[in-house]
Amino acid sequence: MGSVKKIAILGSTGSIGRQALDVIRALPDELQVIALTGYKNLELLEKQIMESQPKMFCSSIKPDIGYNGEFLSAEEIASHPEVDLVIVATAGKAGLSPTLAALKASKIVALANKEVLVMAGEIIIREASLHQAQILPIDSEHSAIWQCLQGEENKPQRLFLTASGGPFYHYSQSQLAAVTPEQSLQHPVWKMGRKVTIDSATLMNKGLEVIEAHWLFSFPFDSIEILMHPQSIVHSLVEFIDGSLKAQLSWPDMRLPIQYALSYPRRWPNPELPRLDWNKINSLNFEPVDYDRFPCLKLAVDAGKSGGTYPAVLCATDDVAVELFLSRRISFTDIAKIVRKTLEQHQNISQPSLEEILAADAWAREYAKRLSTDHCQESEPRNNPGTEI
Amino acid sequence: MGSVKKIAILGSTGSIGRQALDVIRALPDELQVIALTGYKNLELLEKQIMESQPKMFCSSIKPDIGYNGEFLSAEEIASHPEVDLVIVATAGKAGLSPTLAALKASKIVALANKEVLVMAGEIIIREASLHQAQILPIDSEHSAIWQCLQGEENKPQRLFLTASGGPFYHYSQSQLAAVTPEQSLQHPVWKMGRKVTIDSATLMNKGLEVIEAHWLFSFPFDSIEILMHPQSIVHSLVEFIDGSLKAQLSWPDMRLPIQYALSYPRRWPNPELPRLDWNKINSLNFEPVDYDRFPCLKLAVDAGKSGGTYPAVLCATDDVAVELFLSRRISFTDIAKIVRKTLEQHQNISQPSLEEILAADAWAREYAKRLSTDHCQESEPRNNPGTEI
Repeated sequence: MGSVKKIAILGSTGSIGRQALDVIRALPDELQVIALTGYKNLELLEKQIMESQPKMFCSSIKPDIGYNGEFLSAEEIASHPEVDLVIVATAGKAGLSPTLAALKASKIVALANKEVLVMAGEIIIREASLHQAQILPIDSEHSAIWQCLQGEENKPQRLFLTASGGPFYHYSQSQLAAVTPEQSLQHPVWKMGRKVTIDSATLMNKGLEVIEAHWLFSFPFDSIEILMHPQSIVHSLVEFIDGSLKAQLSWPDMRLPIQYALSYPRRWPNPELPRLDWNKINSLNFEPVDYDRFPCLKLAVDAGKSGGTYPAVLCATDDVAVELFLSRRISFTDIAKIVRKTLEQHQNISQPSLEEILAADAWAREYAKRLSTDHCQESEPRNNPGTEI
Repeated sequence: MGSVKKIAILGSTGSIGRQALDVIRALPDELQVIALTGYKNLELLEKQIMESQPKMFCSSIKPDIGYNGEFLSAEEIASHPEVDLVIVATAGKAGLSPTLAALKASKIVALANKEVLVMAGEIIIREASLHQAQILPIDSEHSAIWQCLQGEENKPQRLFLTASGGPFYHYSQSQLAAVTPEQSLQHPVWKMGRKVTIDSATLMNKGLEVIEAHWLFSFPFDSIEILMHPQSIVHSLVEFIDGSLKAQLSWPDMRLPIQYALSYPRRWPNPELPRLDWNKINSLNFEPVDYDRFPCLKLAVDAGKSGGTYPAVLCATDDVAVELFLSRRISFTDIAKIVRKTLEQHQNISQPSLEEILAADAWAREYAKRLSTDHCQESEPRNNPGTEI
């Protein structure tokens, strides 16, 4: 049992964290939970702690559950000498500081928290390189690209990120303006957290993934393309310089990319993971993306191309706007409007420090909230979704 | 120019040979033709020789074209010290002896001649291993599998060979019995030689590819599956032990797998190779194979599983039967009947020597011809295709 990988899961009570625990549970000879952190769902965290008996844990408050593991900060856990691999499954900017701590301690970081690379890609990649730390993707699209790049000596020509399109891909502009939070939370393929599910419906999520791919694979934005693929079987594709493409396929199940990041560079058999059944797949469909009806996608890619503090503003504003939509204060199509207005008002800082990134985040949240408050005082957006913000 | 790979093309006047010359012509900094061999189309061979000015050549007769390259045997060329890589693009058993000569001289062999591995897989793989020679596939399906295996440490779980299905995949049994050679030579996707085109229509070709995959990837027959895929964009797939699959895709153009074998382990840019255009691909379709209407496929796989001299008998009989069909002496559905009858009458020899394989080939050709002669004296098969052979 000397070669068992010791895993810290940051954000173990979220969707990715829970599935990571499923994978680790199925592979007791290979993997062991050494640390868990969770903040919102303390009841579940306590349950996970009692089951996994991790050596270390972290939460917003120290639970009194008669369990004497070490209570440490997320950064202390991420950089702890006994940790082999850190799964960053937190959401939003919460992942930034522990990820940096892990990289500075030369850990392997399996990254599910998109905002870490979107907000601070330049800093994260620099620190990883400086400390010879590895960043392994957990997002299904980036895992697919990463799998397809294995064993290839040449830099590829193009990356194709596939997108299911979410529940509204064939809705008209006016239909989109009228969709409810309930409809938006019904993703046709993936079962995910609320924020990611709305981001999938606006295609903001795909835009964040483009920025993430840019940093993970040090790949130019103009060579990263989006391909709509409603079945979510082909998780992404890589085109090489000779015109050959490789695709990675599987039943849509996040446990597979999680396990790949944990087993890399090997693969492990796991009977719990589903197999593709070709008797049930008659057709895999593809179509070009429609940037016009889903403005969040272009806003994100443009913010990524501009760089500096723009991507942090994008993330922060989207976070605020999605929350406002879920609480019925703005319409679905207002999300893009709030993001655009805030980006337009932002004074960009290029090559920002972490402090500058966090300051841009704070400014953007403030600005976006004010925008929506002004807007809400003028109108009832749920009944009048066409109002210009 | 010191690192230019010196290429011998055995069978340069055939479809694969001509396309190999196209690839080499497009990559003058990387590749150089050092030898050509051709037997049937002497006029084209002379033209190729005058253009490429190879150092060595071989043919059925020495052409008198005022060109003073060395006239050698195919075996001498395949094992010549100056040759870096031998493309075996001959057809049928003609490739056997030069391939063995190349392997014994520790050459890299890029293999397009299926029958070499089908007839003598055990001997070929043993000689390659003994002399540390490499065998690289050129068939699009095997190239796809090989590309998907790059960088993977674990043996895969299943291989899926895709099959376009040829021109008659949705024909009924009675429609199949009535198809003409002209119809059969119209392949919907690939432009290939006559024999391979008919083998594609009967699915015998896919059966030979299963046997080839078994030897190339030392993979059990029961884990090699066939997937019908009419667009021929996905050239094959590999399923790994964790349930993840990789597929290789490209526009159907044999120059790509030829170039990959020549550039391996790198890839080279070649603007002449076509790019997949996702604006033109709406759907990739897949369906399970129908073994009943295409008995040649199962005959081939069963011959491969039984091993010994059965696969050589399969190849030889199919060769005779396809010729009989093309000369209108038997019907399309008679091809499988002749192959089955001959296999049933064969006394198998396990772990055969090359001589025993060639003797089985000779016996099978004789037997199949007699079968058809007896049959043709009794009936006019083109008018009465239902007659039992």
